[in-house]
Amino acid sequence: MTRTYTIDSIPGDGIGVDVTDVAMECVDAVAGLHGFGVSWRVRDWNSDFYVKTGRMMPVDGIEQLSSGDGIYLGAVGTPDVPDDVTLWGLLIPIRREFDQYVNLRPMKLLPGVTGAMPEIEDLDIVVVRENVEGEYSQIGGRFGAGTDAEFAVQESVFTKAGITRVARYAAKTAAGRGGTLVSATKSNGIIHTMPFWDEVVARTVEQFPDVTVDKVLIDALAARLVMKPTSVRTIVASNLFGDILSDLVAGVAGSIGIAPSANLNPERRYPSMFEPVHGSAPDIAGKGIANPVGALWAAAMMLDHLGEEAAARSLTAAFESTLAEGIATPDLGGSATTLEFAREVRSRLR
Amino acid sequence: MTRTYTIDSIPGDGIGVDVTDVAMECVDAVAGLHGFGVSWRVRDWNSDFYVKTGRMMPVDGIEQLSSGDGIYLGAVGTPDVPDDVTLWGLLIPIRREFDQYVNLRPMKLLPGVTGAMPEIEDLDIVVVRENVEGEYSQIGGRFGAGTDAEFAVQESVFTKAGITRVARYAAKTAAGRGGTLVSATKSNGIIHTMPFWDEVVARTVEQFPDVTVDKVLIDALAARLVMKPTSVRTIVASNLFGDILSDLVAGVAGSIGIAPSANLNPERRYPSMFEPVHGSAPDIAGKGIANPVGALWAAAMMLDHLGEEAAARSLTAAFESTLAEGIATPDLGGSATTLEFAREVRSRLR
Ligand SMILES: CC(C)[C@H](C(=O)O)[C@@H](O)C(=O)O
Ligand SMILES: CC(C)[C@H](C(=O)O)[C@@H](O)C(=O)O
Repeated sequence: MTRTYTIDSIPGDGIGVDVTDVAMECVDAVAGLHGFGVSWRVRDWNSDFYVKTGRMMPVDGIEQLSSGDGIYLGAVGTPDVPDDVTLWGLLIPIRREFDQYVNLRPMKLLPGVTGAMPEIEDLDIVVVRENVEGEYSQIGGRFGAGTDAEFAVQESVFTKAGITRVARYAAKTAAGRGGTLVSATKSNGIIHTMPFWDEVVARTVEQFPDVTVDKVLIDALAARLVMKPTSVRTIVASNLFGDILSDLVAGVAGSIGIAPSANLNPERRYPSMFEPVHGSAPDIAGKGIANPVGALWAAAMMLDHLGEEAAARSLTAAFESTLAEGIATPDLGGSATTLEFAREVRSRLR
Repeated sequence: MTRTYTIDSIPGDGIGVDVTDVAMECVDAVAGLHGFGVSWRVRDWNSDFYVKTGRMMPVDGIEQLSSGDGIYLGAVGTPDVPDDVTLWGLLIPIRREFDQYVNLRPMKLLPGVTGAMPEIEDLDIVVVRENVEGEYSQIGGRFGAGTDAEFAVQESVFTKAGITRVARYAAKTAAGRGGTLVSATKSNGIIHTMPFWDEVVARTVEQFPDVTVDKVLIDALAARLVMKPTSVRTIVASNLFGDILSDLVAGVAGSIGIAPSANLNPERRYPSMFEPVHGSAPDIAGKGIANPVGALWAAAMMLDHLGEEAAARSLTAAFESTLAEGIATPDLGGSATTLEFAREVRSRLR
């Protein structure tokens, strides 16, 4: 009897559909080779669904997802619906209700992909981003709407429990990656939450004798990632800082299109969610030229999380060797279509 | 009779002292050549002052500064005093009480300075940063200190008036620089303040027929500044986003040590403040090797603000031609001391 995982796939909008389409086929293929199965429950929860129903997912959407082994997301967003609606209606509730408090964003230079600084050869950075609290909150609103005195406020909320658990995960990650954990902060400018972040990170990492914290101000860190990207291996960052830094690192590695993101509930009480970092890119949607590497890498992270490490390695090796051959989509300077690229990947699975 | 400007100089800590020392001499020299004078009121307000008095500046510090024509700051900060104390005791109150709501941070590739991406040749970016509200606020605090339930909150505050005036300044800046104003936002993740930012920026810039807004999410913008830095000319950003982006842009241009910052009260009701972007760098303080370019560029911005445009141009040309000769401090790969560099600059003033 083969083991079968139930995965909820939410292709979403735009190129989210293009890349998950081909990536799911690659996952099926590698699963077949490694003796397990994936049963996809494809969900049509996207901006069209919103236009029809006034919601990004059904009322019991979270409940529906909760019975699965994982969630595989393409991208959501369309010019017709405000981004805060699409995202706070789907992506963010999934992250929060499933307590996916770690957002893991690895990046390295891939073969055949030219980084922003061509002379750099060994970039290898993991961003461990806090994923459910911090600067992204619903506490706030407007005063005096429409008047000259109008203002808007939003509260950042950092909890000891929330910082502790993400710092612990990051410390474990750093332990296997040289032992230095760069903590992104702004405790000189943001005087209530970031000194607290520093304190709790320091206290948590103290319990890991092999790990030391390198506390770096977010502004200086942004510059350092551009000037000396190889001096950084593992970063722990708040929700907003992790968002910014992971895109920045992807830029240094040459492309947002290759970047994966795992939204993890490390205790596995709830399903985790895997997605490429890129958005829905409405301008190239449906043209068959979207880069599926971010989606494939995210799928490999999902297989790894499910315990199918060999399949994850095979999938990763397959897209890396495809890129190494010079086969790539137009955004990376190649001429392959999404489908052609994926076909090459499939032919390389072992 | 020659015109004399009264400038309050606050060398501050660490290399703040090293760079302002030599930069003030260069300013005196160029003033002499251009027929005006500068009367410096040098203030010893720094971390030592704090250790002695418990304050970063005297109780009537702001009042003392208010009678001057401008403020010239080195850098503040020392390992012995928490950063939030040094900065919220001096830098931030000056910015706020003098309503220096525009923080102007220009950056370009300087001759002889290698940018992070050597193939880029025409980088020229101005960041217009909101400087008195936004994410930096004192509203917030801790709940349940010492308990497991401890959490910290901090409120971001964005006002219509505050966004409008910085957007207007930025629109005027962009009008003279190609007409596209990149507005840094995060309206998909930060749901109260950033959609409001977008709205007010759009409404303000509408009044400038020659300017169009290019609204870019902060994460994508960070990546774009690395991958296509020459596609961006003028940025308007909130306090925090402007802080991060301006350091990032300096990193792209090759060095934080060259970056200047003008804290402007555009209406000239209060003195404006000019400072290099770099910090106090305690590790190299007093060694005579600090890079004075950021301080010199900031001084040139001060002269420009005072209406002494010719002197400003002369000072800028002098440090640029020094760099073009290959004369530079060690951080830029040269072997000049701070003093030697400044002497070269002085000899080139016209
Ligand atoms: C020191 C700090 C509070 C300050 C800021 O963030 O404003 C600094 O980084 C700057 O950019 O001038
Ligand atoms: C879409 C947006 C809310 C989201 C975020 O900032 O978390 C995205 O940028 C990401 O990084 O997954």
